[in-house]
This record gives sequence, structure tokens and C-alpha cells, in this order.
Amino acid sequence: MTMSMAASHAKGKFATDNIFDANAAAVKAAVQFGKDKVTNATIGALLDDNEVLVCLPTVEKVLRNLPVEELINYAPIAGLPDYLDAVIDLAVDIHRPEAYIKAIATSGGSGVIHHTIWNYTEIGDTVLTTDWFWGPYRVLCQDALRKLDTFTMFDEQQHFNMVSFQEKVTALLAKQDSLVIILNSPAHNPTGYSLSDAEWAQVLNLCKEIAQDKSKKIILDVDIAYLDFAGEKAASRSFMKQFGGLPENILVILGYSMSKSFTAYGQRVGAMIGVSSSKDVIDEFVNINQYSSRATWSNINRGAMRMLATIYKDKSLLAQVDAERNRGYQMIQERAGIFTREAKAANLKMLPFFGGYFLTIPVNNPAAVCDKLHEDNIFAVPLAQGIRIAVCAVTSRKITGMAAAVAKAKAAVD
Amino acid sequence: MTMSMAASHAKGKFATDNIFDANAAAVKAAVQFGKDKVTNATIGALLDDNEVLVCLPTVEKVLRNLPVEELINYAPIAGLPDYLDAVIDLAVDIHRPEAYIKAIATSGGSGVIHHTIWNYTEIGDTVLTTDWFWGPYRVLCQDALRKLDTFTMFDEQQHFNMVSFQEKVTALLAKQDSLVIILNSPAHNPTGYSLSDAEWAQVLNLCKEIAQDKSKKIILDVDIAYLDFAGEKAASRSFMKQFGGLPENILVILGYSMSKSFTAYGQRVGAMIGVSSSKDVIDEFVNINQYSSRATWSNINRGAMRMLATIYKDKSLLAQVDAERNRGYQMIQERAGIFTREAKAANLKMLPFFGGYFLTIPVNNPAAVCDKLHEDNIFAVPLAQGIRIAVCAVTSRKITGMAAAVAKAKAAVD
Repeated sequence: MTMSMAASHAKGKFATDNIFDANAAAVKAAVQFGKDKVTNATIGALLDDNEVLVCLPTVEKVLRNLPVEELINYAPIAGLPDYLDAVIDLAVDIHRPEAYIKAIATSGGSGVIHHTIWNYTEIGDTVLTTDWFWGPYRVLCQDALRKLDTFTMFDEQQHFNMVSFQEKVTALLAKQDSLVIILNSPAHNPTGYSLSDAEWAQVLNLCKEIAQDKSKKIILDVDIAYLDFAGEKAASRSFMKQFGGLPENILVILGYSMSKSFTAYGQRVGAMIGVSSSKDVIDEFVNINQYSSRATWSNINRGAMRMLATIYKDKSLLAQVDAERNRGYQMIQERAGIFTREAKAANLKMLPFFGGYFLTIPVNNPAAVCDKLHEDNIFAVPLAQGIRIAVCAVTSRKITGMAAAVAKAKAAVD
Repeated sequence: MTMSMAASHAKGKFATDNIFDANAAAVKAAVQFGKDKVTNATIGALLDDNEVLVCLPTVEKVLRNLPVEELINYAPIAGLPDYLDAVIDLAVDIHRPEAYIKAIATSGGSGVIHHTIWNYTEIGDTVLTTDWFWGPYRVLCQDALRKLDTFTMFDEQQHFNMVSFQEKVTALLAKQDSLVIILNSPAHNPTGYSLSDAEWAQVLNLCKEIAQDKSKKIILDVDIAYLDFAGEKAASRSFMKQFGGLPENILVILGYSMSKSFTAYGQRVGAMIGVSSSKDVIDEFVNINQYSSRATWSNINRGAMRMLATIYKDKSLLAQVDAERNRGYQMIQERAGIFTREAKAANLKMLPFFGGYFLTIPVNNPAAVCDKLHEDNIFAVPLAQGIRIAVCAVTSRKITGMAAAVAKAKAAVD
């Protein structure tokens, strides 16, 4: 028997990392065969057409030129006030819902989910998300001693599956009084799907119906990590207007992240934005999440918050950032367009892609398909029911022909 | 009744912040009476003799000149490998204990305590620390649904109170099988006390005695946030040698922070360094804490880790940083020296100060003494049993006469 010092609930925890493993295989192949010969579609960061990590030039300039005290001083626990004002406005833009809205700085988008689970579910509760989901959602639930359950994301027409959503929400709220639902939209990771405004209306109508029972509470955790790679600014945010005027027992939490929006992944800055019709609920939101911040990471990287606030306050800097980011968005859309056209030609079924960093091919045997692709020096991430292609990271040149290769590998092993 | 959406354990959480409140009062007074007239002894950061926040010049230079991909890219969940190697060596220096030693990056020193509590105590357990302690220790315990208990830190000779320590450790380990003990040394916040090597030997002897019962587990969480402001490099680390060859059921976790050592407070980077005689325990330490990192903040600010690793690998940069930091240390020692001499002259009892950012005056009515000091435009932080003076932040000019003012205020209200 191995010696252990861990608490009973912590024994045996071990993170396996599909994405890391797949990337490591790609890096190894690049060393062996040359970088030119290898397609690494595992990386969740924007690379340019020379396969160099993109930092929006204005972001770099502002970050490097911050006064030193902004780089090194502590920030308030809740975050810099002008950062918090800025992220609310950047998140909702012209579609600000009629509601009380407050924000708390977090360690990226992950930190939002951490606090939401910790403060809005009981230990042992089940959290709900889509069956296609970013793997760490499960780790976040399990480490906090919660469970994760899923509903079927797509119906047969590849639209949002309201039937499955309704079944699972209803079943879980029969067992527990409170339910956290994580919906990653727009530009969902790993599929690239965005719920339409009509689909959001259906989601909210169901929530409102259930919320007529005042003993039930619904917390909609909307992960908007890919919001700024989801299309035109106002159009991709129009669904947010619907978060106004909801019943008091529905709390919306937007999970904002600087990682993609400002290509500032490693700076670890995001924010949870609470949206509620109840002032009490929003005051509580600020108090309890600020408390958990003090008890988790203390405060958040001041420099990156100041960088965002500086850009936000200067209309010309903000316009530059938007333009620079838009070039990245267009680059990804072009790559995804190539893949989509070629997938159609190769009769390869894709999940519906609208935007974001990834697209997904459903396959029966993801690990075997990924292994088979290694023969062509193509590296993708195996998911539970498909393979994930990081269109953010694969150049147009290299993505050309990739759909055919996937179709071939799928036919060979699936 | 106010509307609440929080989980049962999260309802009503509200952080009061003595330090923030005291600082806000000082800032207000500075606006009203002029900065020159106000002594702000509340700030936990190193200010120079012009009351400007100190950033070690080499730290700034290296940080500003990092390649952009090091500033913005994600880091591995556990931290950059060369950062982790560096912090272990920087922490233990020539006094490396004979043991398995591994590190995991954290969000500053707070993150170390978060993970230690979460992974090494059961829900409902009691954590032990000194009766003089950094307030957030209690918030960290409470948010994680643990309790904090304290022992009397000093005996009548103002030495470490082994009797009280033994009583509390014994009593708690009669009730629970596992005990996390947080000891902040050297250069304890808020007193400036450092346990001597002989006192550490006594602490460890008691732990070893209790650990003869193999059903009991002791986790010594040694908060070394002020290690680099505690005196000569090797001498201030000599106690660490004693962490070698301990029984397998004693795990030492060193809480390393870049906040003070590299004047990088707002960058939010630290590390938990596990020290154990058991390879199993250290493998488990890496696995479970890495898992919790993924489930809390995901990964840690890459740029600051790269900055430390860059400095560490270049002997001349490291020597510069040590020299620059030493000037800060000498500045604080000079300020503390003035206060100590004047306190003696004014017959004002101080707790024993060896180093760090703070010193403490025990008083019966801390809030009233602090209020009284406001009449002299002096602002300090009221603790449960005394007042904390941030010698890191008060210039020699302003600290002159301060002990007499405290003595006067104490005499007036105590």
C-alpha cells in the first residue's frame, strides 16, 4: 500500500490531460520529421500563418508600457474598479440587459466556474452542461466534490436539443433545489456552435417556467470565453438582452476571459459578471465571491487588468485592438471555411461551426482515428465522441487536405 | 427577508477588511492634511524613503524585456519546470533537507494555503496557527468549511511558547487524525518574530513524538513569505535542514511567494514546496495539488515565472537582485531600529521583531488606540490584541517619534 497524507476526498486525484498528450506527440513528430511536415491541431491559442503565437500588437504595447507600480502592486480583492466597469461593457456592449449587473475579477474563465460551483451549489450537487464540453468542467466539479451531468447538445437537425435540455433540467431540479447550468456560447469549445437568439429564448422560457416554483433556483453560467471570435460584435451579443427582467430566482453569471479576447492567456485574468433582477442577489454575488477570492487566489494580476482598462478608456486603442483581433478572427474563419468545404466534398460529417477556436468531427473511435492521423503527421485531440481540430492554430496551407485525411482515417478505423 | 441564490454554506459570507479600512482612512487624511503630515503604517509593501513603491530594478528590467510569448502564453498547470526548480533552490539554498522535494506553482502565498487546506484536511477539521496571525488565514479556513484554532505564540520571556503549542497540537490530534499547522516564520506577519533553530528542533521533536502513532498525520505548512527579508541568506534558512529525515507521516509544505522576494505582489505567483521522506507522499503531493490547480485557477502567470527563472539562471542577475533586495532589507531594519530604540525609551512594550515587513505593539484596546493615533495623523492596523506597524512602508523620517506617539495613545485609552 502506498503512503498517503491526503484528506479522504483528495486521495487518488490525478489529472490526465488529453490535450497535453496530443500536443506532446505533435512536438515530438516535429522534431523527428521537421515542423513543415507536421500539422499540430491541438493548440488552444491563435497562431498566425507562420505558426507563431499571436499577441495583438496594441495589447503588447500597452502591457509593456504600464507604469511599474501597476505591474507589481496588489489589486483590490474584487479587482480594479475601472477594469470591472470595462469588462461589463465589453461583454454586453449595446445589448446590456435590464438588470443589476456587477463583476468580480477571476483567474481567467476557469476561476469563474470555480467560484460559481463553490458558492452556488451544495456539496454533492450535480452541475449540468452539454455532452460536448471542455474537459476541465468535470475536473472543476469533481475537485469541489460536485458531480457533472450532461444533456444531448444537438438534435437530429444539428440544432440545440431543447428536448434533452428540458428533460435533464427538470430531472435534476426534482432532486435538488438549485441547479448550475454551464452553457458555453457563442462559439462553443469544442464545436464552434452558437445558440441562436431563438434558442436562447427557448432556454430562458424553460428556466422561467421552472422558476415559477420559488423554492427552485437556477444559475445560468454562460461561458463567453470565445465571445470575441464569434462574429460581428453586436450580433454575437444580441442574446444578452434576454438576460434582463428574469425572475429573481434565476441568476445569470457571464464568464468573461481576457485569454482569447486580448490574447492574454498566460496573464490569467477574467471576470464573473452577475446579472439579476434582484439587488439582494447581486449584493450577495459581490460579497460571497469576493470572499472566496480572498480565500483562493487573494487578488488578480493587476497589470493585465490595468492594460484592459487603459485600452478600454482610449477609443483609438480600443478600435485598434478590435481591428487587430478581427484579423485573427478572419484568419480562423478562412481556415474553418477550407476545412468545411473539403469536409463536405469528402462526405465527412462535422458538427455545426460558427466561430471560436475549434471545430469537431464526431467519430465512433476518437483515439483510434487520432492515432491513424499520426501516420499523416496530423495531430488532433480525441474527445469522448469525436476529435477536436484547433482551427486557431493550423495555417490555411496546412489545413488544406486535412478534411480528406480525417475522412480517410475515420473510414479506416471507425 | 433578503433574496438569496447562494448555497447554504455560502450564505452571509462577507469580508471585512481592517487593513483596507485603515489604509482608506490614511489616504483620506493625506488628501485633507497633505501627504507630508500623514504617517500611513498600514501598507504591506516596501516603500522607499520618498514613499514610492519599490520594484527591484532588475526585476522590472527582466519582466519588461521578456519575449512576448512568455508574457501571454499559457503555462503548464503545475508551473514552468525551470521555475519550479528555481524556487526550490531559492527557498532552501545551502540548507536543502535530505528528503524528496517537489514544487507546484500557486497564486502567491495565499494559493499555497488554499491547496493545503483543501487537500490535507477533512471538511469540518480544525487548522492550527499562532494567536498572532495574518487575518486571511481565518478566511481561508472558513471559506473552505474548516475552522481555525490558535495557540499562544509567546511565553513570558517572549520566546516561542512550546507549552501552549504542545497542548493545542495534542488536543486537536486527539479529536482528528490529521492536523495542518500553519507557522509563519521567519519574519512573521504581524510581529517580525523568527523561530530559532532550537525552537524549530522542539517543534519537530514534538511532531515526531506524536507521529509515532502512525494513524496520525501532521502537515506543517511553513509560510516563508518574508524569508528574504529575515536576515542573512544562509542563516535565515538554516532551520530548513531539520525538515530532512522526518517520519513519513509528517509532511512539510513551504509556502514560497514572489510577492516580497521579487517585489512582484500583483503578479500573483508563488509555489508550494513539498518536503517528505516518502516518495509516495511527494508523488501524491504533485498529483493532487496539480489537480486542484486545474480546478481553481487553471495555470499561473507565465511571465512572472519566466522572469524568476531567467534571473535565477543568470548568476549576475541573481546577484543584482540580491543586492537590490538587501538595500530594501537594510532600509526596513533601520526603520525598525529607530522604532525599537524609541519604544524602549518610551517604555512601550513591543513583540520581538527580527525582520519582515511588520512589527506589533500589544495593547488592550487596539481599535481605540488606532483611533487615538489618528489625532496625530498616524494610521496603523488594529489586530485582535495589538496594533500592526508596517515598517516596510514608513520612512525613517516619519517613524521617528512614532513610538512615543503610540505610547501616548496607549496610555490615554488602554
